[in-house]
Amino acid sequence: MIKCSGKSVLKGIAIGRIYLYKKQEYVLKQETIENPEAEIERMEKAKETATEQLEELYQKALKEAGEEQAMIFDVHKMMLDDADYLDSIRGLIRDEKMNAEFAVNLTGENFAGIFASMDDEYMKARSADVLDISKRLIRILAGVGEEGIASEEPVVLLADDLSPSETVQMDKSKILAIVTKHGSTNSHTAILARSMNIPALVQTDVALLEEYSGAKAVVDGFSGTFIINPEEDVLEKSVQKKMEYEKERTALQELKGKDNVTTDGRRINLYANIGNVSDVDKVLDSDAGGIGLFRSEFIYLGREDYPTEEEQFVIYKEVLSRMQGKKVIIRTLDIGADKQVDYFKLPHEENPAMGYRAIRICLDRPEVFKTQLRAIYRASAFGTAAIMFPMIISVKEIRKIKEIVEEVKTELTKEGISFNRVELGIMVETPAAAVISDALAKEVEFFSIGTNDLTQYTLAIDRQNQNLDNFYDSHHEAILRLIKMTVENGHKEGIWVGICGELASDTTLTRTFVDMGVDELSVSPTYVLSVRKAVRDI
Amino acid sequence: MIKCSGKSVLKGIAIGRIYLYKKQEYVLKQETIENPEAEIERMEKAKETATEQLEELYQKALKEAGEEQAMIFDVHKMMLDDADYLDSIRGLIRDEKMNAEFAVNLTGENFAGIFASMDDEYMKARSADVLDISKRLIRILAGVGEEGIASEEPVVLLADDLSPSETVQMDKSKILAIVTKHGSTNSHTAILARSMNIPALVQTDVALLEEYSGAKAVVDGFSGTFIINPEEDVLEKSVQKKMEYEKERTALQELKGKDNVTTDGRRINLYANIGNVSDVDKVLDSDAGGIGLFRSEFIYLGREDYPTEEEQFVIYKEVLSRMQGKKVIIRTLDIGADKQVDYFKLPHEENPAMGYRAIRICLDRPEVFKTQLRAIYRASAFGTAAIMFPMIISVKEIRKIKEIVEEVKTELTKEGISFNRVELGIMVETPAAAVISDALAKEVEFFSIGTNDLTQYTLAIDRQNQNLDNFYDSHHEAILRLIKMTVENGHKEGIWVGICGELASDTTLTRTFVDMGVDELSVSPTYVLSVRKAVRDI
Repeated sequence: MIKCSGKSVLKGIAIGRIYLYKKQEYVLKQETIENPEAEIERMEKAKETATEQLEELYQKALKEAGEEQAMIFDVHKMMLDDADYLDSIRGLIRDEKMNAEFAVNLTGENFAGIFASMDDEYMKARSADVLDISKRLIRILAGVGEEGIASEEPVVLLADDLSPSETVQMDKSKILAIVTKHGSTNSHTAILARSMNIPALVQTDVALLEEYSGAKAVVDGFSGTFIINPEEDVLEKSVQKKMEYEKERTALQELKGKDNVTTDGRRINLYANIGNVSDVDKVLDSDAGGIGLFRSEFIYLGREDYPTEEEQFVIYKEVLSRMQGKKVIIRTLDIGADKQVDYFKLPHEENPAMGYRAIRICLDRPEVFKTQLRAIYRASAFGTAAIMFPMIISVKEIRKIKEIVEEVKTELTKEGISFNRVELGIMVETPAAAVISDALAKEVEFFSIGTNDLTQYTLAIDRQNQNLDNFYDSHHEAILRLIKMTVENGHKEGIWVGICGELASDTTLTRTFVDMGVDELSVSPTYVLSVRKAVRDI
Repeated sequence: MIKCSGKSVLKGIAIGRIYLYKKQEYVLKQETIENPEAEIERMEKAKETATEQLEELYQKALKEAGEEQAMIFDVHKMMLDDADYLDSIRGLIRDEKMNAEFAVNLTGENFAGIFASMDDEYMKARSADVLDISKRLIRILAGVGEEGIASEEPVVLLADDLSPSETVQMDKSKILAIVTKHGSTNSHTAILARSMNIPALVQTDVALLEEYSGAKAVVDGFSGTFIINPEEDVLEKSVQKKMEYEKERTALQELKGKDNVTTDGRRINLYANIGNVSDVDKVLDSDAGGIGLFRSEFIYLGREDYPTEEEQFVIYKEVLSRMQGKKVIIRTLDIGADKQVDYFKLPHEENPAMGYRAIRICLDRPEVFKTQLRAIYRASAFGTAAIMFPMIISVKEIRKIKEIVEEVKTELTKEGISFNRVELGIMVETPAAAVISDALAKEVEFFSIGTNDLTQYTLAIDRQNQNLDNFYDSHHEAILRLIKMTVENGHKEGIWVGICGELASDTTLTRTFVDMGVDELSVSPTYVLSVRKAVRDI
C-alpha cells in the first residue's frame, strides 16, 4: 500500500484501477546512440506499427465518416512509404548516430519545410501531413500512447498534468477521478473535475511509475489522499465513506422541483453552465431554470477551419429547442489565452491571458463574429435566447457590438428570416468593467460576472500557475467588493446581475451573494441542487 | 527620399545617420544547400573571424579587467579549434546538405548536452561555453552583428523591435532616436525612449534594408514620420523645427529652483525615477525633490549570480549620499514577468506578467529578500531612505514583510550596525490593492501608485502586446477611479499617496491628479520640469 497526498479540488471518493495517462506532447531529446543498425531496426518496426494504425484508422473512418474523411489516412500511409523520407531518417541515424526519435523529427521538419515552400496548394497542404506521420512515428518509438483513454471500464486517471486541449478531447465517461502530479487547484484539470463532479487531487506527491498502471486505488477528495494498492481495511473504510457521501447526495435529489427561495422569501434564479451539446441532458436532469452560460468555444475547437453559419445554427437550435423556452444565454466566442485554435492563426503572445482574445478578436474580425451572431439570431426563433459578450472593458466596445448586431438583424429581416427578441448582456470579468459598471449598465440588459477571470486580473495571478497557490485567494475582499459594486450599479439601471464563474457554486458564499442582491447564479449542472439547498437554508 | 510613418511615442525631432540594428536573437532556419564544399568553406572563414574576435576580446578584457576575466576568451578560442566539434559540423554540412548555421547549432547543442551530462563540475560548466562559441559562429555566418552599437557618433537606431534585455545593455549615449518596425506605444522601446527623452517611432512601415545603413534620416516625433535621405528643403525645415522645440525646452530650464505650486497655492512633491546609479546625475540636474522610484532590478540583471549584501550596500550608499538627505524610495526587487534573471531559475510561465514575480519571489525566498533589506538598512545611515514593495495584493503579505523587516533590524542592532528610520510603503499596482486600499493604508506609511501595471491588470491588456493598441486606453475611466479611490483611502488613514508610473508625467492629467489630492508625482528626470510647468500653470 502506498499513500500519497495532494491538494483536493473536490469532495468525494473514487475507487478504481489506475490509468497512467501519458502526455501526448512528447519532449524530444537528442541522444547519441551506440548501435545505429539496431536503431534503424527499431525505426523500421515503428514504421510497421504506424502503417497498421493508419490502416485501422482508415477502416474506422470509412465506416463512421465515409470515403472522403478516410482518404487522409490512406495518404498518410503512402507518405510513410516515401523512399526519400525513410532514407533521410536512416542516414541521420547511421551517420550522425542520432536516436531515431530525433532523426524522424528532424527529417519531418525538413520535409515539411520543403512542402511548405512549394507553389502548388496541394503540395503545401502536405506539410502538415508529413509532420503528422512523423509525430505518429515518434510516439510509437517513444512508447507514448495516443491521446484518449484506452480502457474499457472507467478509471482513476493518473497524469503529470493535463492541458485544456487534452481535457477537451477526453472521453469523460471513462474517468472516475483524476490525480495529477502538477496543476494548481485552479487549473483546467481542477475545473474539469468540478464540472464532472468527480474527486480530483493536484500537486500530488506520487511517482508516475509504469507498475502503477492497472493497480487498484482510492482517491479521497475529503482528506486529499491517494492510496495505491490499499490494504483490505482501508479499502473497506473507503467504500463505507463513499456510500455515506452518495447517500447525502441522493438526499439532494429531493430538492428537484422545489423553489430557489430563502426562508425569508428571497428568490434567486439558478441556471447551469454548459460547454457542449451533450451537457444539455445534465442541465435538464439538474432541474436548473435555464442555461446561464453556454460556452460556444467547443464549436470552434478541434477543427481544421471555421464552423459555418449552418453548422452553428444547428447546434444553437438543438440546445434552444431542447430547453423548451427556458432561457439560454450564449456567450460569444472566447478563444485566445489558453484556448488556441490553429486556423485563427493567432499571434504568439507573452501573456495570452491579457492578450488578443474573446471580444477583441471578434471586433477585429467582424466576419467571424457576424457568422456566429447570424447563427444565434436564426436559432432564436426556436426558444428564448440571450447573448453575452466576454472580456468587455469599455462602452465603446459595446456600442460597436450593438452596431454589428443591428447589421445582422437588418440582413436577416431583408432575407426574410424570422428571429425572436434576444436579450443582450455582457460578462463582467475585467476589473475595468466592474469599476465602470455604472456606465456599462446603461448599455445592456444584464450583467453576468465571470469570477474566474475577474479574480485573476484583480489579483494579477494566473489561476493556472501552480507557483502562486500560496498567494491566490478566491474569497479576496477585493473580488467581493467588485461583485457588490457591479450588482448595485446594475440594479441602479434596472438590469439583472448574475454570477457565472466558479464562485457561483461555492456554497460558503451563497448567503453573501443573496445578501448582495445577486439575481442569478449559474453553476455546473452537478451543483445546481447543492446551491439550491444553500439558498433554501438561508 | 523615402518617407515612412509610424506611431510616435514622444515629441521631438532627431537628425542623424541610420544604424541598422540587427537582433542578437537570430532565427535559425534549416536549409538544404546545393554545394556542401562551398558551405564548409564559408564555415571555415567564419571560424577564422570568430578566432580574431576572441583574440581581440581577450586583449580588451586583459587590459580592462585582468587575467582572470580574460581567460574565458582564451578557453573559447581553444574550444573553437576542437577537432571533434569541427568534424561534426563539416559532416552535417557534407552528408546532410545542411546549411552551416544549422549544422553549427545542432553540433553545439549536441556537445553541450554531452558536457552537461558529465560528472566533473569543470566539464559541466563547458556546456555553456560550447553554446557560446556556436552562437558566435552562427552570428558571423548569418551576418548578424554583435549586440551594441558599433558606431563612433550617435545614431538613429533602426530595428525590427527591441527586447528589454537589449535596451538594458545598450550604450544610450549613442542613440539619437529609435525607429522600430514593430513594438507597441507601450513597449519597452517606447518606455526607454521616453526615459531618455529622445524621439521614437514604433510600428513604422519601413523596410530594414541594408542600404539604409549609414543613410541620413529625420525622425519627427510630432508627425510620426521617418524620412530617409531627406531632400534639402525637407532637411532644412526639420532643422528649423528641431531648433524651435529645443528653444521651448530651454525655457523650461528657467523653472529650476522654483516651487511645484499651483496658482491657488496647492503644493505637490515632484520626484524622479531612476533605474541605475548613473541616473542620479540626471536627477540632480532635473531639480527633482528626491527619488520617488529607485528600480533596484539593475543590480540583479546581467550577472551570473546573486549580488552580495556588500555589493548592494555600496550602490544604495552611493545613491543616498549623492542625494544629500533628499528622500530616496527604493523599490525592492521586481524581477519575473518580462525581466528574467537566469540564476533565479524562475519556472516557465504561460502568463509571466500575472506570475511568480516581485514580492511573491521575495516572500518565497526570504534569504534573497533579507540580503536586499540588510543592504538598504545599512545604507540608510547615509541619507533618507524609504522602501516600497511591489505587487502587493493583501494585508497578509504586508504583515509578513514587516516581520522580515523587524528580523533584519534586530540582526543589525545585534551586530552593532547603525541605521536610520526607514519609511515603509507599498506600490499600489494591482486592482486588488487599489480596491482594498482602505485596509492596506492602515499597515504602511505611504502608497505609490504604479500606473503601468495597474492599467494592464485593470484592462486585462498586456501593455507590450501591439495587437491590442486599439483596445488600450491609458486614460480609461476605471484607472482614474482606482487612483482616486487609493488617494482618498490613503488620506483617510493619514498617509501620503504618490504616482510613479508613466501616467505621472502625462501633463494632460496633472490637473486631474492635483485635484484628486495626489501628494507626489515621480517621473523620469527629463519630465520633472515639464510637470513642474504643468503644476504651476494650474
